[in-house]
Amino acid sequence: MAKKPLILVTNDDGITAPGIRNLIEIMSTLGDIVVVAPDSPQSGMGHAITINDTLYCDPVSIDKNAPYKEYSCSGTPADCVKLATQQILKRKPDLCVSGVNHGSNSSINVIYSGTMSAAVEAGVEGIPAIGFSLLDYSHDANFEHCKTYIKNIAKQVLEQGLPKGVVLNVNFPKISNQPLKGTKICRQANALWVEDFDKRVNPQGRDYYWLTGEFINKDKGEDTDEWALANNYVSIVPVQFDLTAHHFIQDLNNWEF
Amino acid sequence: MAKKPLILVTNDDGITAPGIRNLIEIMSTLGDIVVVAPDSPQSGMGHAITINDTLYCDPVSIDKNAPYKEYSCSGTPADCVKLATQQILKRKPDLCVSGVNHGSNSSINVIYSGTMSAAVEAGVEGIPAIGFSLLDYSHDANFEHCKTYIKNIAKQVLEQGLPKGVVLNVNFPKISNQPLKGTKICRQANALWVEDFDKRVNPQGRDYYWLTGEFINKDKGEDTDEWALANNYVSIVPVQFDLTAHHFIQDLNNWEF
Repeated sequence: MAKKPLILVTNDDGITAPGIRNLIEIMSTLGDIVVVAPDSPQSGMGHAITINDTLYCDPVSIDKNAPYKEYSCSGTPADCVKLATQQILKRKPDLCVSGVNHGSNSSINVIYSGTMSAAVEAGVEGIPAIGFSLLDYSHDANFEHCKTYIKNIAKQVLEQGLPKGVVLNVNFPKISNQPLKGTKICRQANALWVEDFDKRVNPQGRDYYWLTGEFINKDKGEDTDEWALANNYVSIVPVQFDLTAHHFIQDLNNWEF
Repeated sequence: MAKKPLILVTNDDGITAPGIRNLIEIMSTLGDIVVVAPDSPQSGMGHAITINDTLYCDPVSIDKNAPYKEYSCSGTPADCVKLATQQILKRKPDLCVSGVNHGSNSSINVIYSGTMSAAVEAGVEGIPAIGFSLLDYSHDANFEHCKTYIKNIAKQVLEQGLPKGVVLNVNFPKISNQPLKGTKICRQANALWVEDFDKRVNPQGRDYYWLTGEFINKDKGEDTDEWALANNYVSIVPVQFDLTAHHFIQDLNNWEF
């Protein structure tokens, strides 16, 4: 590539989260970067977009003397990508990276994930895209063991591109005293959250709930992201946004409506 | 079925929207229903869930003397389904229906859709589920031409079930002077929204944006939902939430990370 690649960086934990600051640092070694990220945490936002409200998107300077531009946006991760590509960037980026999320986006978490919705939104617009997540929810999570992998995976995608309609969902095990064993290309495990709402009463006497839950992996397969992560591998799941269950079309054609 | 089926009804336009009132009326002829729906419009919420805020969910009485219970919830469509199955319903419902949405959820709209996220959430929990949408955004949209189809499709799903991991996305053309031609089993068309942000200045002098956009169908296939709807058919797309791009796994295994 003659020109330096243009890389859009975003996330769902907000523009000041350590995860995105690490991602910015890594991506700066691969190309020219522009950061457009939410001004506040947007976890669990799924593929929400802002239709009935106004959007703010202001230049900010978080790392002084940084050679890249940053924009803080009042919207969702998907809004950030839309604003970046349509309003801020002068040309289509060569890559969009989202994260590094503080917390897992493996298996069914992909459908609730703001991190992955940003990557999917970029993919819909024809931009190669990767979501990165670390299985550590803490604000001061350690990202050191992820860095070389993140750089290599992004470099590969810049060099080889991705097929139309496919983005990557990359998850890292939490750091431990065992080095990572490498990467595994995986399918999304069949898992779900079983909710256990915490019911309380507010000072005015009205019932309210907190959403809590337990993650249940029903999938024993050794080709899943859950298996890879449990065995100290980096999981890479190719993700598509054609949601058609093609395998069921033929059967449905036999139904009488 | 000896016992009357239990049907959970929800939507994303809010519990008082005409679309869900029509759906309630139709579902009441098929089984015992319980309504758990957002207290306000939630369009474009995708698969958002409420993690960092409290949830209210209160019994309401909208149709006086109605033989069913209704609950109005402060959360997203996905929250409504979680609250219904974990807190409100005494047993797992036999069917979850979402809608009828005021506006299209065909093709790529499925990933932004609160209506479909409720159906997908039910599907994740192992409940047969259908999202219904009408290609008419107006509050006083006419749902008459949809009613027989909605009843038949729901009846078929109650009788035959759906495969694990599959829910249905049903869209109806706007009413016209031509009768509907029937149903078409379709794949999701390859389409996208190209945004055209409306940039304005607020009274304090700060720039802000409204998200607007144009829907672009890049797919000429006659097996797509867009084709069916443009030709006055009811489109039925089987939708899955295993987002793995299985076709790309083998290629990715050859990459060097």
